[in-house]
Amino acid sequence: MATTRQWHLASRPVGEPTAENFELVTVDRPEPDDGEVLVETRYQSVDPYMRGRMRDAESYAEPWDVGEPMKASVVGEVLESNDEGLEAGDIVTGDLLWAEHAVASADELRRVNPNLAPVSTALGVLGMPGVTAYFGLLDVGEPKPGDTVVVSAGAGAVGSIVGQLARIAGAHVVGTAGSDEKVNWLTDDLGFDAAINYKETDDLGGALEDACPDGIDVYFDNVGGPITDAVWPRLNVRARVAVCGQISQYNATEVPTGPRKLATLIEKRARVEGLLVSDYEGRWGEALERLAGFIDSDELEYREEVVDGFENAPDAFLGLFEGENIGKQLVKVADGSA
Amino acid sequence: MATTRQWHLASRPVGEPTAENFELVTVDRPEPDDGEVLVETRYQSVDPYMRGRMRDAESYAEPWDVGEPMKASVVGEVLESNDEGLEAGDIVTGDLLWAEHAVASADELRRVNPNLAPVSTALGVLGMPGVTAYFGLLDVGEPKPGDTVVVSAGAGAVGSIVGQLARIAGAHVVGTAGSDEKVNWLTDDLGFDAAINYKETDDLGGALEDACPDGIDVYFDNVGGPITDAVWPRLNVRARVAVCGQISQYNATEVPTGPRKLATLIEKRARVEGLLVSDYEGRWGEALERLAGFIDSDELEYREEVVDGFENAPDAFLGLFEGENIGKQLVKVADGSA
Repeated sequence: MATTRQWHLASRPVGEPTAENFELVTVDRPEPDDGEVLVETRYQSVDPYMRGRMRDAESYAEPWDVGEPMKASVVGEVLESNDEGLEAGDIVTGDLLWAEHAVASADELRRVNPNLAPVSTALGVLGMPGVTAYFGLLDVGEPKPGDTVVVSAGAGAVGSIVGQLARIAGAHVVGTAGSDEKVNWLTDDLGFDAAINYKETDDLGGALEDACPDGIDVYFDNVGGPITDAVWPRLNVRARVAVCGQISQYNATEVPTGPRKLATLIEKRARVEGLLVSDYEGRWGEALERLAGFIDSDELEYREEVVDGFENAPDAFLGLFEGENIGKQLVKVADGSA
Repeated sequence: MATTRQWHLASRPVGEPTAENFELVTVDRPEPDDGEVLVETRYQSVDPYMRGRMRDAESYAEPWDVGEPMKASVVGEVLESNDEGLEAGDIVTGDLLWAEHAVASADELRRVNPNLAPVSTALGVLGMPGVTAYFGLLDVGEPKPGDTVVVSAGAGAVGSIVGQLARIAGAHVVGTAGSDEKVNWLTDDLGFDAAINYKETDDLGGALEDACPDGIDVYFDNVGGPITDAVWPRLNVRARVAVCGQISQYNATEVPTGPRKLATLIEKRARVEGLLVSDYEGRWGEALERLAGFIDSDELEYREEVVDGFENAPDAFLGLFEGENIGKQLVKVADGSA
């Protein structure tokens, strides 16, 4: 019988995850039932939110079980189909497993047209991160022309799209990032008005004031922690804060503490709102169409960081917390015809 | 020449304000210019937000100057008028001084009808606290029938109105307060479904869960600090938090710290928004009309705590931070005909 490999959760991390939390397991290749297809993974996504699923705590995403395969968004090729809507050779994307092969119900998969864009984009700019950026910025942040928009983790999969969409919306755009290479990418290639390397800045508040002479109208928060602490006091009256991620906090072993800032919201009558892309399920089409249009017109650039080889998937995931990726972090699992 | 007394800011407090920060000064009674009136204070308001004005820091309200009279909302009687719209004997309210007499431009005063309600209510349920409760709950909190609404400082001038308006809106209403007397007032007289004496509760989270079996849809935050820390994790998906005050933090001498909770907002897609009643200046009439209607129909109760004598105004103010007041704290400065 044919086999496939899966990454299992070997143990729950305490603090920063390590390679010991993952186990590579070879299992029989599963067979699709009626209405199901067998998918061969081309690219697997690794995302910061996965850190939450390694924890034994209920949240918006169910925790992974120890000793079981972990879940991931993948894009892949249909090898066998028991559904009349899909056939072998079709490229699809969906929430499957950290696995070289997996079966899925056809109705949980979305078809990807390999002629429109590289199929890997279905996990990035034309997938969850892009759609998150789109609705988070436009629906929650509501930027207006002339507004100042700050995005933390500006060089990440979501942040790099947020900043460009803000630029397209006519805003003054400032990003924070953790290396000079990232900062240069934001200003030189993506058209951010300014970018701050927070790791090289003693006075983050002063740097924000220099970059945002008219204050901050929209803050798209991917990181939390000290960067967010520096942004809040510089919000303008009626500012909007979209809370998308808090990656600086995800590996904390004790409840992290920080300065209490809620009084700022009274002074500024600011609004802070959390967002999950899953709430926009019915509106993905709208976002994907506009994002694809901006790519076509060269208004929107994207970058992918590809780690080659399924065996390296945990390293790619762990690198997210070191800030190693620029743009979307992917794992290339198999070559394909498309 | 006639004199009057004023309370001046003698020095800026460090931490908890004390009697030493205030100085009682006798000055010449001011005379009204053209378009101005001389007002004799009947009641002076003391409010928690005044703590911010004792600080030497710009905020939404200008700081008071050391050695100068402090500002306060008052209701009083016009003694002399140099404006054709007002005449001696009229009852007015406005932002004047901690003073027995003050002059004001007639257009900065609002006329109070002493036949509709006791004139003191112009500083409470039919004044700034009532209007704050009205717009903060209805515009920011947006309670729907069946929602659970939690209000901190539920027995305060604002909180006690918030809870009753939430009850009228068909919500399940829970208040927090700092004494059994307050808690009993909320449940026995004001129709709150439950109230928690946070000072007598070891497990605030558990108490909230008992009182809010369906979670929390709206949180009206007057206090911040540990009560707010206990509320946030119990917010429901799409919950609304109206941040009106943070009284537990106002006397802090160092930046107060607490657990970082922003990740909760992502999980719950909750919205947190600060509010200032001054943003609703053009809509006071709407609020006052509805509040007066609810008082008329006995759906809305209010309570006033009156300290007698202008010389006791600082004590009344300091008592706010000890949680001494139930309902609206006032200082009675002069008797009048109305």
